[in-house]
Amino acid sequence: MSQGRKHIEKNPSAEQTPGAAPGSAPASAPAPSEELDLQPPRGTRDFYPDEMRRRNWLFGLFRETAGRFGFEEVDAPMVEHASLFTRKAGEEIVHQLYHFVLHDRHLALRPEMTPSLARMVIARQGAMRFPIRWFTVTQNWRYERMTRGRRREHYQWNMDIWGEPSVEAEAELLSAMFTVLDALGLARGKVKVRLNSRALLEESLRTGVLAKRPEVFAPLCVVIDKLDKIGAEAVTELLCDPAGAVGLSAGEAESVLAMLAARSLDEAARFAAPDSAALADLRRLYALLEAYGIADQVPFDASVVRGLAYYTGVVFEAFDAAGSLRAIAGGGRYDRLAETLGGKPVPAVGFGFGDAVIGELLEDEGLWPALARDVQDVVYAFSSAEKPAAIAVATRLRAAGRRVELALGTAKLKRVLGDADKAGVERVWLIGEDERARGVVKVRDLAKKMEHEEPLKG
Amino acid sequence: MSQGRKHIEKNPSAEQTPGAAPGSAPASAPAPSEELDLQPPRGTRDFYPDEMRRRNWLFGLFRETAGRFGFEEVDAPMVEHASLFTRKAGEEIVHQLYHFVLHDRHLALRPEMTPSLARMVIARQGAMRFPIRWFTVTQNWRYERMTRGRRREHYQWNMDIWGEPSVEAEAELLSAMFTVLDALGLARGKVKVRLNSRALLEESLRTGVLAKRPEVFAPLCVVIDKLDKIGAEAVTELLCDPAGAVGLSAGEAESVLAMLAARSLDEAARFAAPDSAALADLRRLYALLEAYGIADQVPFDASVVRGLAYYTGVVFEAFDAAGSLRAIAGGGRYDRLAETLGGKPVPAVGFGFGDAVIGELLEDEGLWPALARDVQDVVYAFSSAEKPAAIAVATRLRAAGRRVELALGTAKLKRVLGDADKAGVERVWLIGEDERARGVVKVRDLAKKMEHEEPLKG
Repeated sequence: MSQGRKHIEKNPSAEQTPGAAPGSAPASAPAPSEELDLQPPRGTRDFYPDEMRRRNWLFGLFRETAGRFGFEEVDAPMVEHASLFTRKAGEEIVHQLYHFVLHDRHLALRPEMTPSLARMVIARQGAMRFPIRWFTVTQNWRYERMTRGRRREHYQWNMDIWGEPSVEAEAELLSAMFTVLDALGLARGKVKVRLNSRALLEESLRTGVLAKRPEVFAPLCVVIDKLDKIGAEAVTELLCDPAGAVGLSAGEAESVLAMLAARSLDEAARFAAPDSAALADLRRLYALLEAYGIADQVPFDASVVRGLAYYTGVVFEAFDAAGSLRAIAGGGRYDRLAETLGGKPVPAVGFGFGDAVIGELLEDEGLWPALARDVQDVVYAFSSAEKPAAIAVATRLRAAGRRVELALGTAKLKRVLGDADKAGVERVWLIGEDERARGVVKVRDLAKKMEHEEPLKG
Repeated sequence: MSQGRKHIEKNPSAEQTPGAAPGSAPASAPAPSEELDLQPPRGTRDFYPDEMRRRNWLFGLFRETAGRFGFEEVDAPMVEHASLFTRKAGEEIVHQLYHFVLHDRHLALRPEMTPSLARMVIARQGAMRFPIRWFTVTQNWRYERMTRGRRREHYQWNMDIWGEPSVEAEAELLSAMFTVLDALGLARGKVKVRLNSRALLEESLRTGVLAKRPEVFAPLCVVIDKLDKIGAEAVTELLCDPAGAVGLSAGEAESVLAMLAARSLDEAARFAAPDSAALADLRRLYALLEAYGIADQVPFDASVVRGLAYYTGVVFEAFDAAGSLRAIAGGGRYDRLAETLGGKPVPAVGFGFGDAVIGELLEDEGLWPALARDVQDVVYAFSSAEKPAAIAVATRLRAAGRRVELALGTAKLKRVLGDADKAGVERVWLIGEDERARGVVKVRDLAKKMEHEEPLKG
């Protein structure tokens, strides 16, 4: 129902001139009765009570975990200026922008949360006390081709630390991620987080191709991210394409691909720059992960670079161990994003953890809990004359914090009792003519299958 | 951060052909660094931690209250087919639709929740067990002119009952609304709910103008809703405009306006049709509101009709008693909406309660609670060598359900302690070289200003 905000005092004629209102309905839009589609728009979901209980349970774990790590929740509008999201590194996410023009403004539904967070940080950068620990649980949109049941919206839990340059921040975030995976009931080993550092690669190219063209690093990573999907040959082709954004020589591409094969820090050391700071950071990170008890869940994998342009350091992605699903979560360090967007430099690291893939994994593993409708009491009046007494009982129970369904209208007792039983209701309160005359209410305990009476006046 | 869904296996070339993707970024969009606007789009809000805590507190009350009334939460996509919202009754809300065309589809951000709920009910109407009690807490959008700081988005709590024809449903909803107002700390009398029934008016016109043209009732109500804003004369003009949607005679308009002046059921009875069912319903509703203890908070007011076309029966709107703000909440019965949208008939009633006006009222009344950052423990290591021990302590506390901030990097103790004090942190856990050597951690109780030691191994 509409809350009925009254807005037109200042321009009461606004709705008499529909053509002038930039948001006015298109004259050609059909009346709903003519062709109402009962399904939500393609790629989007309705949440009926069953699905909503699962969503609330999952989001509750996200929020509870973030709270235990001392993170504060924030939010930004789902509609942003499109320019916040457009970048030139060829990322998939930019090409899938859900954008539109309203009143000559390019707007977009956010495809991810990080740029909005960056905007918020920069807007108050002078007044902020760093480090800040923020989390969000938001819906993000991508206008992508619909294949294999993929959707155009998903919800995503984000945790981000702004203002901490050390890998202690990465370690905290990874620990939070495993806290949720543990709470979901996923046994250790069911989910692995593959981790790498873009800085390793960047260091090794710093005296080479990046010396003259540092701007190719972001598109280079975007190309490398496709390795799993399109293979080494196609990646080499894209890296060496003279018309592309990267333009490596064949030798450079070959040495990059060789580096990506490393699967341990010792292997990576063979390719790393002398006195590599990135490697030292990684060694320190693994020592911290050891203290958190999760180092063995986080294999090093030099081929992980992530597909977003803004990452600069450690990057990671969580996968089911069987490898049958897409990434469950992903993130990394993006120390230069604030500068790119016009702010002062501030180091930052974060991850996103969506609701879609983890939902599939919980389904596959049979780990969704049984979440029934949570009603504790049902209050039932046998006829209209007892309704006020039933209302008084329900109101008293509710004031005491109980979750109470008041049977409405001419609901049949048998059906009400049947539904109550199915919903796991504890007690049914019954008021008929006799009870009302005697000033009592009959209380049926559904679990114990016992009845007693209580006075109507509490 | 992006969760990195991997989508392009099936069409790896999709992003090489940006022009073909309907959601691709406009080629002319500027790179963000060129003109990044640090503010969210006009009429929208960021929620920094302070604002988010208030929002979560308010929404928590909405959810808690709905739960006590046995309602189940649902949700639908914020983007719907525009046709779901377009109606022909001249409503303000339809002219303010945030609509856009993507891939030849007319889409819109929802301006209100009810049509989406109706779509969801109709889609499963055969399998539903009525009555259903649903609630939502959603963001709704209106592309309206920005005056007096009004916004283009707001959040709204909705409670709806589908499948119950009796006014017992209305009474439950109004009780839920007052349960929240009470919980917010608003003394009785600070908010009044003005209530009426559109059916009263419809009955009296049934043998007159509606006999031949029943379709004029909805636009008639939309016009009457403007009475407060534009006055009786302008309303009469709109009602009698031969080119308008209503087209009453002067006499009909006069008798309609006379009815609207009634401020009690006895006054309304003088105008009502003989044996008026609507009046009997209203008398019954007030008897129920008496049982809920809220009848004196809900004055009858025949001029209340609400501005949405779909209402058919009881309508109501909540205002601050001083009358200085817009409507806090509003709702009513919409028994024919399901049919209008192509479903089978099902009676329904609901309300919407926004976050904007209630927020202003809480501000005016000084009723927003002090909501500090909720951290219970801070763990601090004096140097890098003690970090693993600090991590072990933090992890143990978190596993026990505590809300713990782990000081990161080279944070200064003085500042960490100052911030902890301000945030109301209970204990600070300190680990230096000496503590680590002795296998202990120093625990400082900030409230009691006392210190003790505990073993590092829990």
